[in-house]
Amino acid sequence: MPLLVMKFGGTSVADLDRIANAAAKVQREVERGYDVIVIVSAMSGETNKLVKWVNDTAVFYDAREYDAVVASGENVTAGLMALRLQEIGIPARSWQGWQVPINTTAQHGAARLVEIPRGNIDQKFAEGMKVAVVAGFQGISPEGRITTLGRGGSDTTAVAFAAAFAADRCDIYTDVDGVYTTDPRVVRRARKLDRIAFEEMLELASLGAKVLQTRSVELAMRYNVRLRVLSSFEDASDTSGTLVCDEADIMELKPVSGIAFSRDEAKVTLFTIEDRPGIAAAIFGPLADAGVNVDMIVQNISEKDYDEAHPGAVTDMTFSCPIDQVPRAKRAMEEARANGLIRYDELIIDDEVAKVSVVGIGMRSHAGVAATMFKALAAEGINIKVITTSEIKISVLIDRKYMELAVQALHDAFGLERA
Amino acid sequence: MPLLVMKFGGTSVADLDRIANAAAKVQREVERGYDVIVIVSAMSGETNKLVKWVNDTAVFYDAREYDAVVASGENVTAGLMALRLQEIGIPARSWQGWQVPINTTAQHGAARLVEIPRGNIDQKFAEGMKVAVVAGFQGISPEGRITTLGRGGSDTTAVAFAAAFAADRCDIYTDVDGVYTTDPRVVRRARKLDRIAFEEMLELASLGAKVLQTRSVELAMRYNVRLRVLSSFEDASDTSGTLVCDEADIMELKPVSGIAFSRDEAKVTLFTIEDRPGIAAAIFGPLADAGVNVDMIVQNISEKDYDEAHPGAVTDMTFSCPIDQVPRAKRAMEEARANGLIRYDELIIDDEVAKVSVVGIGMRSHAGVAATMFKALAAEGINIKVITTSEIKISVLIDRKYMELAVQALHDAFGLERA
Repeated sequence: MPLLVMKFGGTSVADLDRIANAAAKVQREVERGYDVIVIVSAMSGETNKLVKWVNDTAVFYDAREYDAVVASGENVTAGLMALRLQEIGIPARSWQGWQVPINTTAQHGAARLVEIPRGNIDQKFAEGMKVAVVAGFQGISPEGRITTLGRGGSDTTAVAFAAAFAADRCDIYTDVDGVYTTDPRVVRRARKLDRIAFEEMLELASLGAKVLQTRSVELAMRYNVRLRVLSSFEDASDTSGTLVCDEADIMELKPVSGIAFSRDEAKVTLFTIEDRPGIAAAIFGPLADAGVNVDMIVQNISEKDYDEAHPGAVTDMTFSCPIDQVPRAKRAMEEARANGLIRYDELIIDDEVAKVSVVGIGMRSHAGVAATMFKALAAEGINIKVITTSEIKISVLIDRKYMELAVQALHDAFGLERA
Repeated sequence: MPLLVMKFGGTSVADLDRIANAAAKVQREVERGYDVIVIVSAMSGETNKLVKWVNDTAVFYDAREYDAVVASGENVTAGLMALRLQEIGIPARSWQGWQVPINTTAQHGAARLVEIPRGNIDQKFAEGMKVAVVAGFQGISPEGRITTLGRGGSDTTAVAFAAAFAADRCDIYTDVDGVYTTDPRVVRRARKLDRIAFEEMLELASLGAKVLQTRSVELAMRYNVRLRVLSSFEDASDTSGTLVCDEADIMELKPVSGIAFSRDEAKVTLFTIEDRPGIAAAIFGPLADAGVNVDMIVQNISEKDYDEAHPGAVTDMTFSCPIDQVPRAKRAMEEARANGLIRYDELIIDDEVAKVSVVGIGMRSHAGVAATMFKALAAEGINIKVITTSEIKISVLIDRKYMELAVQALHDAFGLERA
């Protein structure tokens, strides 16, 4: 029997009507001849409520208890979904993480999947069950305690089940109808993509397009799970939504598939540091210890000559991080200087910047993407502060006030409104 | 190390402040040198919300899914209680039913406890944990599915843990400060009892005093668990609340300890039925099949002689049941007659009755309790419709409008306001 994994996010199961709506979508796939594994999130708002209760109860909480509390939202939805499916005549039952069991590491709050044995669920399929409803986001540690996979973990649960059960496809039902060339709230002519390669989705996801959890895309890429993102509020056809797939399944690769952006960035520059082996480690070690998520890093070529105040070669180092981590970054640098780990003359913070990135697997074989990008930004009079590149993306840091203008200009420059 | 079981009901853990208040009570017992097992209910209102969701999703629901949904409220409270205890410096952890494991039968929605192995919790006590927080009301079936013990099941969980772990005492924290001679809302001078015997509590519990679940009292009696009922909203001393204990632990047994009542009763009489062996089974079998909880049963001595319409001896049969079960009772009787199982001339329903009972273990050795009761009711002009007696209680069915008057008169007649 061909098998499908269908995952419904929090807004898709927010109340009993929406659970019924989701169940109807499952019913349609069962009628097409599929066995289905349904992965559910908690009703939207529930997990936040539980997290708040934990935070209000204990400042430095025991992550094992956090997980035990926070995982309960998915259990409720799983049971209700199974009940609804039964009510419309479909043999279904629910599974909590420990019942499957979904074996994870013991890193509570951010556990990683280790193994999903198929035995229990396969046996029920063999006995005539058509739908297994599984609580997403959770698992069980080697010590038998409840774990959670981190926010958005239900996407990862879904992809892992699709891999473990060799599903034909993993459909992620959410509140948007697919992956767009960029955020339609910024660029009105943003276009829904029919297909996008795993690598592109990975860059878009980690750059702030909040459609899929990054880990779920990594997992899908590793196990070549065909992943479809589609809306639970529309009637789906076989071509609905966006298929995230191997690049071999995409006929023609465009140089640029989408434009991602991230508004709340900050740029930190250390002026006049020593230019010596180990200096990067001396800077970014303390930042990592302080929990700062450093994103872009640029070390300028040393321009300053030897002078008496700074014997030896000197250089400047610039990095970006989320704006709310700036105080931590500043403290970490000042302490490192006080402890003699690093030396710098000045630490300058620019917290009025944003990051804009163009992403496309086709740029590997297309020259001139960077030139087009820089020309488009220059035509709008937008100054570029930092540039970083990878094989399939080019990111720039610009003044935050130009962010939307830049995204629109780039969307036009790469003709993304046309399929 | 001496061990205490402390159970907190829904109103005692209704929000984070109350959980903190309950945790402070646990802390006090830990400081006195006890290891503690805490049993928690769901926050008040949570279980009702979950039950409503199930009922609104499926009319004839799968009780296994019902249990999976409804048990989740206790998991949240257990985690939060453990977190709060840790926050005030007490080594604690939470257990869900399947983690202990609390082994039950597979009667979902009304499962019975089978066994509570001590190994997991004992091991943590040995490692220095001071408090085990256990989700009440739930367990795990032989098939590995989540079960619930029925409403009020957390009391039963608490007593079962007290028995399994040989606890010094099982303290049930609730929103009343003990067991009263009768409901203080009906009789202002009702008096809190310092001690009450298991058998008396059992009669009071099953007669409508909603302080403790009946099964929990049965279990406490069977394993001789000293059970204390006390308020979570007052500072407890060693003599707070009411101790439910073996009658040997009560110095002087009064003939009557308390007065119970039940407002919403109905009386059903079948006139002119055959007086033959098996007739009671022919009547009460169909009633049981229809789910009618028959309470009092009275078969009048046959007064009617042989007549042509009714050859053989005839009699009348009266029983009482909760008023909302009358339609089911009526249908069951009419069907039994239509199927030829029973014959009767007339079925008369009196749905304006209430039940009042005096309960006291001392009446076994005191004569004249019934006489005192009937005299007190007669003095108020209250007519008795049905009487039943057991070794330690006398129950009467009277017109509902006289119920409060009757309870007050009996409270006075037996001098219950005096200790």
